[in-house]
Amino acid sequence: MLLKSKIDKLKDIVDMSDVLTDNAELYCYAEDSTSAHSVRTLPDAVVFVKKAEDVQNILRYANSNKIPVISRGAGTNMVGACTCPKGGIVLNFSRMNKILDFNPIDMTMTVQPGVILDDIKRLADSEGLFYPPDPSNYKVSTIGGSIAQSSGGASGFKYGTTKDYILGLTVVLADGTLMKLGSGTIKDAVGYHLNQLIIGSEGTLAVVVEAKIKLIPKPQSRRSVLGYFDSLENAACGVNNIIKKKIFPAAIDFMDNNSIRTVEEFYPCGLKTDKEAMLLIDIDGCEASMSYQQKCVQDALEQAGASDIQIAVSAEEIENIWIARRASFAATAKLAPDVLSDDIIVPRSSISKMVCACKDICNKYSLKVCMVGHLGDGNIHPQIALNLEDDSEFKRYIQAKSEIYNLAISLGGTISAEHGVGVEKISYINNIVDNSAIEYMKKVKSIFDPNNILNPGKVFKI
Amino acid sequence: MLLKSKIDKLKDIVDMSDVLTDNAELYCYAEDSTSAHSVRTLPDAVVFVKKAEDVQNILRYANSNKIPVISRGAGTNMVGACTCPKGGIVLNFSRMNKILDFNPIDMTMTVQPGVILDDIKRLADSEGLFYPPDPSNYKVSTIGGSIAQSSGGASGFKYGTTKDYILGLTVVLADGTLMKLGSGTIKDAVGYHLNQLIIGSEGTLAVVVEAKIKLIPKPQSRRSVLGYFDSLENAACGVNNIIKKKIFPAAIDFMDNNSIRTVEEFYPCGLKTDKEAMLLIDIDGCEASMSYQQKCVQDALEQAGASDIQIAVSAEEIENIWIARRASFAATAKLAPDVLSDDIIVPRSSISKMVCACKDICNKYSLKVCMVGHLGDGNIHPQIALNLEDDSEFKRYIQAKSEIYNLAISLGGTISAEHGVGVEKISYINNIVDNSAIEYMKKVKSIFDPNNILNPGKVFKI
Repeated sequence: MLLKSKIDKLKDIVDMSDVLTDNAELYCYAEDSTSAHSVRTLPDAVVFVKKAEDVQNILRYANSNKIPVISRGAGTNMVGACTCPKGGIVLNFSRMNKILDFNPIDMTMTVQPGVILDDIKRLADSEGLFYPPDPSNYKVSTIGGSIAQSSGGASGFKYGTTKDYILGLTVVLADGTLMKLGSGTIKDAVGYHLNQLIIGSEGTLAVVVEAKIKLIPKPQSRRSVLGYFDSLENAACGVNNIIKKKIFPAAIDFMDNNSIRTVEEFYPCGLKTDKEAMLLIDIDGCEASMSYQQKCVQDALEQAGASDIQIAVSAEEIENIWIARRASFAATAKLAPDVLSDDIIVPRSSISKMVCACKDICNKYSLKVCMVGHLGDGNIHPQIALNLEDDSEFKRYIQAKSEIYNLAISLGGTISAEHGVGVEKISYINNIVDNSAIEYMKKVKSIFDPNNILNPGKVFKI
Repeated sequence: MLLKSKIDKLKDIVDMSDVLTDNAELYCYAEDSTSAHSVRTLPDAVVFVKKAEDVQNILRYANSNKIPVISRGAGTNMVGACTCPKGGIVLNFSRMNKILDFNPIDMTMTVQPGVILDDIKRLADSEGLFYPPDPSNYKVSTIGGSIAQSSGGASGFKYGTTKDYILGLTVVLADGTLMKLGSGTIKDAVGYHLNQLIIGSEGTLAVVVEAKIKLIPKPQSRRSVLGYFDSLENAACGVNNIIKKKIFPAAIDFMDNNSIRTVEEFYPCGLKTDKEAMLLIDIDGCEASMSYQQKCVQDALEQAGASDIQIAVSAEEIENIWIARRASFAATAKLAPDVLSDDIIVPRSSISKMVCACKDICNKYSLKVCMVGHLGDGNIHPQIALNLEDDSEFKRYIQAKSEIYNLAISLGGTISAEHGVGVEKISYINNIVDNSAIEYMKKVKSIFDPNNILNPGKVFKI
């Protein structure tokens, strides 16, 4: 805990009404959307920052006094990336949520970090433009959090992730210096890509206070194709068939049998609970291409043994067909007091092997697991339902998790595709990242944040 | 010049037959595809590296002896990025040109740095896959050079640039350490994006010895639409109209009147020399969408006042229609002993202002300029034909260049979109990159290459 005098000093820097110090209020900031982190430490204070200068003033003060600073958007991340293991000051960006500029001709938008992704998407849409990254919480999560965690989503297969849509960043360094990165043009080959270094660094290198983002023309039409399979191997085969037909789907998601059954149990929507896997494929592009693309996808899935193929054409039908996939986390959460959504990725050719082995591992440790994910990318989200207060179950979970990660690595994959490392995966980073790469990451950290005040205890151990 | 004994030592490290030390041979390495750099310094030796260990051994030796090391692919870059202002050892990657792995299911390829882009494209194509980056020299330029310079090309508008297709790198650090970066999976959120820091660093941070690249499904069809305009403003307006119709062209290139006339003079192909601007737009996707896309583009261009619209459908027709655009550099080169192809970028809404002002500046300094570029990105390549040995002309060129850069910056643009900085733009980087960002780039450089042996004298002054 910080001395009261240190906290009081904050009120000289920013408006008193922008600072929270009551324990009851601070408690909300001890957690994010991750259930598992063992210690729920309160921050010492939360500041609702309103402008870059607030962030600069707080960082100057915090850096001189070696006080941890944790940036927080909507707190929707899954790895404890905005928890406060060492206390400190939480910068709450919910009031720094303005869209500063929208230029439909240049197809760019300049935003503050607290802007919600859905607001970006909707404003872009109003001019026929498209911001593709779509983490499943995009209706509440912020662009600042997306940048920190390098967020992906179902559209990553065709459209890439957050890192592909950031043209420029304004950041505040640990010592309070304001730094502009990237020219904000569509391409930029002047100097090192420091902005790409900041993206995905989970708030450990600098605090983003402004971002210029790239938009693209919005595809004219979109349809969803849903198909069932007797094995995930057949589903993966269906995806290979689609690519062979030169179709580039906007999304290729899957649910395993446990997910299908769990969703159907809690949110009945007519899913075929006797099937081992369900594929959900979105195609997009010109309306003139839709029938052809749909036929290719249907043929490809049928050739791989799909049954009960359903098509959604209208926006409403598409939304309905995706409800099942999106409900999977909430449904799994009904199986036990807690649910942990993990995030692993393997080369696509190994995805059925990975999913089957993952199920076997969870069976071995008597853990309930529902698997969903982005099959096109080889990205699996095993959602494990358990009671974290049951020590034996928690121990078994830790063992299972470790085996799952080792397997992903042995198949040429990695332990995080789009969630980040945070505190949850910090013990595992050495298993996958080259030792010398970690050493250089630490060297980079030490030049950006020599006092280790920015989100300490995340990404790697220092 | 290095002492002879130091050079002789190289022959203990690698096969003698892999080392060049004769001046006549070294002279070829004093230049790359850039005409303007004032000093043509010879390297002390050239080594044809054949494996990562060669690179490691040479770097260990060079680092202990503080000898500059310059990596070189095909030497096609336009900014003097692989020249040797401080002498040293050139690593020639032309014999490290193997495609090590191609996995069509995972849509990945693992390559050595000397592999030519066209070989990657053709192999991908054989399985219905696509490697989009297409710098105009892609038939000879290498993936190593592309990574170093963060290369783009005409397809950047829809498909992004080299940085968007690198899943993993193996690099050798200045001290000879081999380091693996990135897991090689389609997405990766584990630790800092050091691979993105290496991409575009022009060989100043590490030497790439292997890259894993991402491929995408190849669009089924492609067509080209060519249209003429009475002003570049109208051409830009045509592009805005296309986007409004929710069409996402694979390329949007332009040529100004000087380019049109110069190409027609030297490579007659029936261009309309009385027109102020020509747009060359490629559309791609499902065959079923081609007629619709083509009609949208034609309508969009006509609404903006286009005339003489031509369509290319077959691969041969498309190739023919692009010949004019690609011939522009060679044609401009016939106007004077030398030609310098520059590379600036502005927000697309400012492109006609930039092109017109660029022409005015060149007129003021009595310089011949032909402008081409990627209008969709706002990226202009002013190609200036001059005699570099004419001191007065060279001085006027330097003045014009500086004014062009300042104008690009004042319009919210930057001084390099896809060519890099090299030695050519090193004096200008401070005009566009934030001082603190340069300071941090230097700090990053100092941790990766404390003795400044890797491509010294490039990107920024140390």
